[in-house]
Amino acid sequence: MKNVNTKPVSGTQELLPEQQMIFDNFKQIITNRYAINGYLNVETPILERTDILLAKAGGETEKQIYKVVKTFEADADASEALRFDHTVPLARYVVENESNLVFPFKVAQVGENFRGERAQKGRFREFYQCDIDVIGRETLPLEYDADVISTLLDAFSSFGLREQVVARISNRKILEGLLEVLDLQGKAADIYSIIDHSEKVPAEKTEAALSEIGLSDDEKAKILTFMGISGRADEVENSLRKLGIENNSTFCEGVFELTKVMNLLSQIDMKIVADMRIVRGLDYYTGTVFEFCLSDFKEVGSVCGGGRYENLAGNFAGTRKFPGVGGSIGLNRLFYILREKNLLNLELGKPIDIAVLPVTEAEVKKALEVAAEFRAEGSKVSVVYGDKKLGDKMKYAAKIAKCSIVVGEKEAASGKFEVKEFK
Amino acid sequence: MKNVNTKPVSGTQELLPEQQMIFDNFKQIITNRYAINGYLNVETPILERTDILLAKAGGETEKQIYKVVKTFEADADASEALRFDHTVPLARYVVENESNLVFPFKVAQVGENFRGERAQKGRFREFYQCDIDVIGRETLPLEYDADVISTLLDAFSSFGLREQVVARISNRKILEGLLEVLDLQGKAADIYSIIDHSEKVPAEKTEAALSEIGLSDDEKAKILTFMGISGRADEVENSLRKLGIENNSTFCEGVFELTKVMNLLSQIDMKIVADMRIVRGLDYYTGTVFEFCLSDFKEVGSVCGGGRYENLAGNFAGTRKFPGVGGSIGLNRLFYILREKNLLNLELGKPIDIAVLPVTEAEVKKALEVAAEFRAEGSKVSVVYGDKKLGDKMKYAAKIAKCSIVVGEKEAASGKFEVKEFK
Repeated sequence: MKNVNTKPVSGTQELLPEQQMIFDNFKQIITNRYAINGYLNVETPILERTDILLAKAGGETEKQIYKVVKTFEADADASEALRFDHTVPLARYVVENESNLVFPFKVAQVGENFRGERAQKGRFREFYQCDIDVIGRETLPLEYDADVISTLLDAFSSFGLREQVVARISNRKILEGLLEVLDLQGKAADIYSIIDHSEKVPAEKTEAALSEIGLSDDEKAKILTFMGISGRADEVENSLRKLGIENNSTFCEGVFELTKVMNLLSQIDMKIVADMRIVRGLDYYTGTVFEFCLSDFKEVGSVCGGGRYENLAGNFAGTRKFPGVGGSIGLNRLFYILREKNLLNLELGKPIDIAVLPVTEAEVKKALEVAAEFRAEGSKVSVVYGDKKLGDKMKYAAKIAKCSIVVGEKEAASGKFEVKEFK
Repeated sequence: MKNVNTKPVSGTQELLPEQQMIFDNFKQIITNRYAINGYLNVETPILERTDILLAKAGGETEKQIYKVVKTFEADADASEALRFDHTVPLARYVVENESNLVFPFKVAQVGENFRGERAQKGRFREFYQCDIDVIGRETLPLEYDADVISTLLDAFSSFGLREQVVARISNRKILEGLLEVLDLQGKAADIYSIIDHSEKVPAEKTEAALSEIGLSDDEKAKILTFMGISGRADEVENSLRKLGIENNSTFCEGVFELTKVMNLLSQIDMKIVADMRIVRGLDYYTGTVFEFCLSDFKEVGSVCGGGRYENLAGNFAGTRKFPGVGGSIGLNRLFYILREKNLLNLELGKPIDIAVLPVTEAEVKKALEVAAEFRAEGSKVSVVYGDKKLGDKMKYAAKIAKCSIVVGEKEAASGKFEVKEFK
């Protein structure tokens, strides 16, 4: 069976040990920053009830769900599937464990999700999402929106990307209010998606799209002016007032929330700009929406995003309400971009700190003692076994380790060992 | 949809945050010990080619494989499935990346595997396996068998279970040789499985089983004597010699390998006993086989096991040979047992170190500065927001955090803050 295809499944990530070290390091940093910022780690199963997944999933996502079936069973109902995000299982988790959780519940989830997308560059079908959410019961103070965003920015700072990150924010209520005033709620879905895509297409295409859905020139003008608004909190507040619709309460609420969250963030020197083009695809966001991308690589899209939702578990929490705010870092996508753009320090060096080389079998015991000493200090140590010549063992050591320690008759007897660094 | 079932899928693990902390801690310890002992972490995708999985899988496992299908597609061929162990994907990985890897390749894999078993107490369908393997090219020194076992024992020591662990070892070649001498190779498979199950059933059942497959009383006696052999390296060597079949080379090789591995381990004070009943189910082991269980809970079976195999990638490496030795810790099973037997210190305490409580919105900025200071020192800090009374905020803080810091007008002005520990 020499000719079996040994490539990994397309749309998945598989790395060499040196690259894996860097990826693991990113994951570790994120996990740590989430914890430091007071988010409790939780892990829901990858196997999830199909009915739970479908309870919320809409259109696109629904078609992307992987169901699982035992290989040699015809399984018509497929009652189990792979989770496609962390939010739906979290909703189930919160409802199931409500009485044992403390609200507001600050929760972190770092794990793999699965979507049956057509695989393409930088698009994954199996991918790590690193989520944080704050879930309230009935109410949740607006400050937690800033808490989520600052925690995510903190993570990006911790892996040295703070400068590359462009963080942008908006609030869904602002556009909602505008559409109320223009009496365009009926076309909200279309308008949302047109705005959502506007950065990926030339301006005239966006204008055309707005005409296509039957907007008058005046309505179009208003929407386009709105879309053009971005900048610091005060700037944006002024520009928005100029739209002259302060009599709409939804609009005003949105402006108030946006400026409050931005001011909280500026108080702790977290740079974020308002941009009315930020709406986020998912329809369940109801207030704050935000998105991070990397300054030089906007074209590859966002590496982090999230927002506020009025009810996490609306689909199966009955009458109880769990307002929440959350965000997610797409780790594989981020890693892929950094690698593509050579922003990764792939010179992390050799994976092993010290290779210990017993010259003959007689020195193995001593070599193991030496290894134990250095391991006790936290060094990564490999003992190189076998009856190969010392030269060959040394060649091997040089490939995997930063330093070497030879344990021959003399060293074993004297108990003196020389740590040699590889050039 | 109030009446949706919000329980997790059966056969999966879902923990409350406090328990998750302990589980994560176990995983972290294992990952660290593997690294310290010189094993390089690698992560293969959970999605794997069905043909790769089926290339090696035999009988039982094959029926347990989950294939994945897009929810709304009839997918007859199901070219993708979920990995059921780390060994098969590793084989693919090694063949695919051979030219970029350094052999012997000491590799660690910590991740979830999936098997469609009927779920039962302590039996998981989605479970963490924490594997290490050493893969050689053409040859692999016997010392690496000891290297794998000592690394696994090191992990158990690191989470304070060294005393509970009973580590037992054998070598497949010994039984193989015995069967050659008795001319029973034809019944090898049956005999292996009878021996493998012998500890779970009363002695007479084992005897009966041996008769059923048509063994003569003399043959039975020899097998039973063999099965009774266990103890220290020297003891076992003597008992085995008493079987009087030193003229069989396979047998002698097995005895030599067993004693050599045991002596290497004793040199570094790693207690392990030989026990001829250890054969391990999987048919691809060809030499060393070992198993750990917890002394007081033998009935729940092994929590760790592994062995030597002559060729990792026999199924698709063509003519190249990759001899290996590896072992795996079944983390969910281990965690489940420890929890059942109250061996877990569930008093790990509150997940958050410090809760910072701004009295009013005016003190939020100051509270965030205080939080930042403690986070800089690595403390897990949560700021408690909202316009609730301080008393209510304090109740919340007491539930999640070890200490509290109140930031009121006075504190904000003076810059003096009191850290109060919760009783």
